[in-house]
Amino acid sequence: MPAPILSRRDLEFLLYEWLDVTALCARERFAEHSRETFDAVLDLSADLAAARFRSHNKKSDATEPVMHPDGTVVLIDDIKKALDDFAAAGMIAGQFDEDLGGSQLPVTIARASLAWFQAANAATTSYPFLTIANANLLVEYGTEEQIETYVRPMLAGRYSGTMCLSEPQAGSSLADITTTARPAGDGTYRVTGTKMWISGGDHELTENIVHLVLAKIPGGGPGVEGISLLLVPKYLPGGARNDVALVGLNHKMGNRGTTNTLLNFGEGRYSPTGEPGAVGYLVGREHRGLSYMFHMMNEARIGVGALATALGYTGYLQSVDYARTRTQGRALGPRNPGAAPVALIEHADVKRMLLAQKSYVQGALALVLYCSQLVDEQKTAADPESAARAQLLLEVLTPIAKSWPSQWCLLANSLAIQVHGGYGYTREYDVEQFYRDNRLNPIHEGTHGIQGLDLLGRKVVANDSAGLKLLLGIMAETLDQARARSGEIAGYAKELQAFVDRLGEVTATLWSDGDPALALANSSVYLEAAGHVVIAWIWLEQLLVVGDRRGDFYNGKRIAAQYFFAHELPTVAPRFDLLAGLDRTTLDAHPDWF
Amino acid sequence: MPAPILSRRDLEFLLYEWLDVTALCARERFAEHSRETFDAVLDLSADLAAARFRSHNKKSDATEPVMHPDGTVVLIDDIKKALDDFAAAGMIAGQFDEDLGGSQLPVTIARASLAWFQAANAATTSYPFLTIANANLLVEYGTEEQIETYVRPMLAGRYSGTMCLSEPQAGSSLADITTTARPAGDGTYRVTGTKMWISGGDHELTENIVHLVLAKIPGGGPGVEGISLLLVPKYLPGGARNDVALVGLNHKMGNRGTTNTLLNFGEGRYSPTGEPGAVGYLVGREHRGLSYMFHMMNEARIGVGALATALGYTGYLQSVDYARTRTQGRALGPRNPGAAPVALIEHADVKRMLLAQKSYVQGALALVLYCSQLVDEQKTAADPESAARAQLLLEVLTPIAKSWPSQWCLLANSLAIQVHGGYGYTREYDVEQFYRDNRLNPIHEGTHGIQGLDLLGRKVVANDSAGLKLLLGIMAETLDQARARSGEIAGYAKELQAFVDRLGEVTATLWSDGDPALALANSSVYLEAAGHVVIAWIWLEQLLVVGDRRGDFYNGKRIAAQYFFAHELPTVAPRFDLLAGLDRTTLDAHPDWF
Repeated sequence: MPAPILSRRDLEFLLYEWLDVTALCARERFAEHSRETFDAVLDLSADLAAARFRSHNKKSDATEPVMHPDGTVVLIDDIKKALDDFAAAGMIAGQFDEDLGGSQLPVTIARASLAWFQAANAATTSYPFLTIANANLLVEYGTEEQIETYVRPMLAGRYSGTMCLSEPQAGSSLADITTTARPAGDGTYRVTGTKMWISGGDHELTENIVHLVLAKIPGGGPGVEGISLLLVPKYLPGGARNDVALVGLNHKMGNRGTTNTLLNFGEGRYSPTGEPGAVGYLVGREHRGLSYMFHMMNEARIGVGALATALGYTGYLQSVDYARTRTQGRALGPRNPGAAPVALIEHADVKRMLLAQKSYVQGALALVLYCSQLVDEQKTAADPESAARAQLLLEVLTPIAKSWPSQWCLLANSLAIQVHGGYGYTREYDVEQFYRDNRLNPIHEGTHGIQGLDLLGRKVVANDSAGLKLLLGIMAETLDQARARSGEIAGYAKELQAFVDRLGEVTATLWSDGDPALALANSSVYLEAAGHVVIAWIWLEQLLVVGDRRGDFYNGKRIAAQYFFAHELPTVAPRFDLLAGLDRTTLDAHPDWF
Repeated sequence: MPAPILSRRDLEFLLYEWLDVTALCARERFAEHSRETFDAVLDLSADLAAARFRSHNKKSDATEPVMHPDGTVVLIDDIKKALDDFAAAGMIAGQFDEDLGGSQLPVTIARASLAWFQAANAATTSYPFLTIANANLLVEYGTEEQIETYVRPMLAGRYSGTMCLSEPQAGSSLADITTTARPAGDGTYRVTGTKMWISGGDHELTENIVHLVLAKIPGGGPGVEGISLLLVPKYLPGGARNDVALVGLNHKMGNRGTTNTLLNFGEGRYSPTGEPGAVGYLVGREHRGLSYMFHMMNEARIGVGALATALGYTGYLQSVDYARTRTQGRALGPRNPGAAPVALIEHADVKRMLLAQKSYVQGALALVLYCSQLVDEQKTAADPESAARAQLLLEVLTPIAKSWPSQWCLLANSLAIQVHGGYGYTREYDVEQFYRDNRLNPIHEGTHGIQGLDLLGRKVVANDSAGLKLLLGIMAETLDQARARSGEIAGYAKELQAFVDRLGEVTATLWSDGDPALALANSSVYLEAAGHVVIAWIWLEQLLVVGDRRGDFYNGKRIAAQYFFAHELPTVAPRFDLLAGLDRTTLDAHPDWF
């Protein structure tokens, strides 16, 4: 019997005991929902993920997409079967409006549902993940006609969607994209350029592929200001092939089942108009493309955090399972070679590796669900102040929700390998694949470095540090509650208080000099320090729910929190010291010295 | 033009400016050698590694060994060609006696030479790496006849060697091996059992394969006391096939070009005697096998550290090369979208990732060469006291020399991917392979956890902490010299002094309670803390040589040391705090709580 894909018990703890997601059912949008419908979604997700997604995870890793001589992409059949079942179960449409065929699920529940699939098969789940993000953006900024023509079939699983941002010469630096969109005079545009790293960029899984393409329309400002967003379908309404050509596939160390493509727009190979240029439709207004894309990007970033978490979590469960089954060595104590070997899980160092994983993956999952609930709050709060507050908090937490799981749940996967010993890096077990799949996440959708600049350079300073002040205030509420408790919880509150205070002070110190280059020289260190403080707060939040409850599950929460406060949180102190000292090492290192 | 495989300049700095390896030429064993012969070895290594090893590194990663229906292993031809050239150049025999066909190179130079090959192609280099370790053991403990029959052809490249320790049910726990060796009455033994994870366990690269097998001879004590060491050749003298059968190949995420095998000894398939049982020859005395193997193991562990270092170093050089070439984004400062993009290496966060790598890989290389010089000292010191001192220091440093590079140079490879952005995890670049290859090293030849137990449970406490006292004394000498210098070096000495003092104190505290289970509950944390202190000392040693010298190379050493002292060493403080507090979290975690 294989290890569970995720922990249903932990999800229920987080969703119902901590976040009280059923309270959302009092809101109009979610009035049809209840604990029963939420549970049914989780049941279905667990079953479908096991039966249809986990079942081909190794196979699609071993059988990468290939480009057929006729230019089509060949995938193993299991992927289409899984995705068709996924769509038929209403999983793509879950969080969308009922009048679009959705079931108006809270994003929090949709996120928990998707995590089962991400944990079971990261690569296959990437296709609907991108489709959902694409559809979300069009629902927000597209025209009625665009929604009717493209979103509806995407939600039904007939079409799929992509995000086309990067180009070979411009990855993180979107100001440098050179793809252009020229008005054709009939309200449409002709798109020309090359897009790189496009996941799901070509395949035969769906009838059509809806590309959302960043391009410059002549007359826009310089840099990012000139960027617009164009909808470019692979097939035009009516069925003609649009001028979008697959140039090649990228081969990555992980997520191998996801086609990752280099696409040429408008090279003339498939021109539907007789002249080179892919037919594109403007989304929203000209020159506003980047802001639309960032609306999607923030959700995608939390989604990447969720993916990293799911991979970390499932690896953790497999390593627990292995550690319980595999015997090796003996307990420390009087030398007794005649004694029977003990299970790996009896060794303190193995427990250390399991505790580290548990504290990372359960902390990350809690953060990701917390952020998802902020999305629900932002969209459905009764008053605009609450919605704005949720959005502000979401913005400051997003770089952490993206980067922290990508860093620490990847380390969790490395520890899962370590628990397996030599078996861990063989393909007979699953954990080496999780580790490879997860290595993509610190780069996907904005690198770690980009997240650090976003957090320290924008999110904690914008509007007189409104976002940071809000976060510190919310943490203070938790700390107040924790201080009122007895014993260890009050002790943790005292420990964490010092780090929370320090976070505010260090942020002010970094910006006190007025030199952005110096302030941002160690923004990655800041990101990591802030991330650990946030996760410690998230653990304290969980402990407030755990209280004095006993039993293996609650004891497990307690010991994982103990691990995080004893082994992890204190590592923030030297990072804060470095930041407070305005360390110039990285800034002053001359390129010739390497 | 590809990035260099290793830095010749850094090797020369470490070997000649710091370790003064040429001073060894005054000793009788090395009397034929000089700076010129050492340089010639390094030249040849660099050339051969580039021409014959790097050239098929990707190909052998993509084309794994397969087991042919007739039971033979098929490898790509390039591996045999490379190894034949390696042997023909005298590289296997380098450090061995002249009368065995060797050139009596210092181990330090042989290590530096091998590092070029490890960096160019970890998998192919594993074959001679194991052969050298095997031959070393036989030279020490084998009979004249065994040396003549097996070592001589191994050193010439005609035979290769393996180490057969692990079994499917017994990895780190050698007490539980069940392979047996029964006296056949004619001085030979019949070996029966299954060995797992045997690198180079079968192939057609050489005429013969010499297995060194741990087995229990009836009548030995329980547990590890009953273990003996048997030499079991694939082909017996005279040419008959011995009863060693390849059962299957293991498929790992890295080092794919190295056959990794499951071997059955004595199942009867190839019996040369008419009855099941592989013919084996005792090495040394009965029931002493483990101590012989550990003699080899200590060298192999430093070799694993060297391999991890080489992979980290070559990835570092590739990421520097990429960061210099690839432009992306703009310098921080006044917004100017019209400015040209800058090279990645101009960004502080990219320099952070390069500095981290540099401080890890150059620190690790220095440690590995320092330990290799201790091997030379132990073998050739003029007086027995110096030899014993070198051996004692080597023993205490070995778990660190194995584990520290395996942990931090793997992280260096992850940072090398990160510097490459999305390209980093594609197979178009090399760094993702280094990362996969390097992930094996925290497990190979004793896991991280095993090294922690070895360091804290044996090496720093044995003989009234003689090893630790020696290490602390040697560090004190460095600190004295550093304090006498001006400026930053004296400052670093002050910083490091506190950590060195703490290392001694914390060790005493851990053992003060008399409870080994509690003392060892966080032995991995101890290992990591001690490792960082040792590497900081190694950086200070380098800085003493750098002194006030200027120029890019010395400035590079200075900034990397600055990085290590500012960003890395301070992280040891919370680890020491945890240890000093005798934290019970890992010990008290109940297996049911996961």
